[in-house]
Amino acid sequence: MKNLLNEFEDYLLNNLPSLKTFHPFFEDALGDMLKAGGKRFRPMLLLSVIKSNKSLLIKNSMPVALGLEMLHTYSLIHDDLPSMDNADLRRGFETLHKKYDEVTAILVGDALNTEAFNQISNASLSNDVKIELIKCLSSNGGINGMIIGQAIDCYFENQKLELSQLEYLHIHKTAKLIAASLKMGAIISEYDLETQEKLFNFGIDLGLLFQIQDDIIDETQSEEEAGKTTQNDEAKNSFVNLLGLNGAIKAADELSLKCEETLNTLDKKLKLSLEELLLKYINRHK
Amino acid sequence: MKNLLNEFEDYLLNNLPSLKTFHPFFEDALGDMLKAGGKRFRPMLLLSVIKSNKSLLIKNSMPVALGLEMLHTYSLIHDDLPSMDNADLRRGFETLHKKYDEVTAILVGDALNTEAFNQISNASLSNDVKIELIKCLSSNGGINGMIIGQAIDCYFENQKLELSQLEYLHIHKTAKLIAASLKMGAIISEYDLETQEKLFNFGIDLGLLFQIQDDIIDETQSEEEAGKTTQNDEAKNSFVNLLGLNGAIKAADELSLKCEETLNTLDKKLKLSLEELLLKYINRHK
Repeated sequence: MKNLLNEFEDYLLNNLPSLKTFHPFFEDALGDMLKAGGKRFRPMLLLSVIKSNKSLLIKNSMPVALGLEMLHTYSLIHDDLPSMDNADLRRGFETLHKKYDEVTAILVGDALNTEAFNQISNASLSNDVKIELIKCLSSNGGINGMIIGQAIDCYFENQKLELSQLEYLHIHKTAKLIAASLKMGAIISEYDLETQEKLFNFGIDLGLLFQIQDDIIDETQSEEEAGKTTQNDEAKNSFVNLLGLNGAIKAADELSLKCEETLNTLDKKLKLSLEELLLKYINRHK
Repeated sequence: MKNLLNEFEDYLLNNLPSLKTFHPFFEDALGDMLKAGGKRFRPMLLLSVIKSNKSLLIKNSMPVALGLEMLHTYSLIHDDLPSMDNADLRRGFETLHKKYDEVTAILVGDALNTEAFNQISNASLSNDVKIELIKCLSSNGGINGMIIGQAIDCYFENQKLELSQLEYLHIHKTAKLIAASLKMGAIISEYDLETQEKLFNFGIDLGLLFQIQDDIIDETQSEEEAGKTTQNDEAKNSFVNLLGLNGAIKAADELSLKCEETLNTLDKKLKLSLEELLLKYINRHK
């Protein structure tokens, strides 16, 4: 799995967006947040599925993995903008609007959003496969996916949500892109529609589990332990505030069990490949 | 041509992005600027090319036309943001960040960018054609197209550009998407590669011509005559300031002549269809 991550990092570094232009820093700004790393979780989900039965297609799928990372990265850049989270740091580096200016942060985000589709459309895969990938990414990363989740997160920042609304928020803001990453791997690997759907639903569970775990970690760990800013804010729409700490832990336990059970229903190679990537996450709240 | 525009307007109104969500106004915000109109110039370029030899494909191409309008509209919404043009009005309506808030304007723009590719990927056209369309739109509407043009426009707002730099700016910011609209029409209509390329280059000339004409009109007409805010700002990077008024008129005359000459080299149906749309624009500075 380490090798797959290294392979992706190499591909990314050798395929950063390039420009012939007299703008003094826009090309650097385009690459900054892509290079800054993170877990590369969405590309790894995609590639882990492909590795399980079509490992010869991994190389040809790298532009798709990069496209996923670009779409995710653009969403982080825009989420950090002054009118949204107004964050100074991201992935340990200055956010783009702090390092350069707000115009640059908006335009780099816009560029990476569009470029995700350019990367996929130019991959050495069949046009039939690429169109399915683009449908999947543009629906789950778009209006009825990530975007409405973020819009709700911002709008209801100071208003209490019900449990079903909080789930809707995180399913859309985070889980759908995770689910799409798995499904896109299944599309490239030519798994049947049933497996595609099963992996998508598994991704929704996984994304929701991660959010509940984050809320638990925010409540129980110091910033040092968690390795990031933790917010034990009682006004925040969190699963801990809605369910209580024990209720949130119980919900996470149930979802992690469900995720493990789903993994057990997958064909053996797919199960092993995904377990190698995911087992360390599935029980991290324990 | 009126009918083609009406047909597009009908399609747009019946296919606005829809959402099932408890967000109080995001669905309205998604539709506001799309409904607000404008000339629908990019969709009309696309559809005029298709009309010339594959009119049976016009209906199936409507999602592509809508995708083009969505990408263009997102760029206007983001250009109007406080950190860029800080505009209060667009197409005669309040800009989204004025009517709602900045978060909404950013996210509606993001959503329309992604949705453009969703629309194209779901059109009833062959996957081979759709991949070519997505390549064309994502390259000309992206990093090496519209985005770098806008980045340069913002960065050099108060610094004097040379003529070649000003041309680069407008070719990227505006002309490439106009050129892509024509080329995408040619891809759908299965015109040969030479015609595709010729139409693309014609679109670049046309986009540049429009900008020079705008600069001339800014210099010579009152706001009432021009029907919009005119800016006779001497510090502005404009063709009139770089070439002088007479020089700019001469450049526009040369480009409009070149455009007419190119139209004359096209096959008869294509020429007639484009002339019907374009002749009123090509000489509007005279």
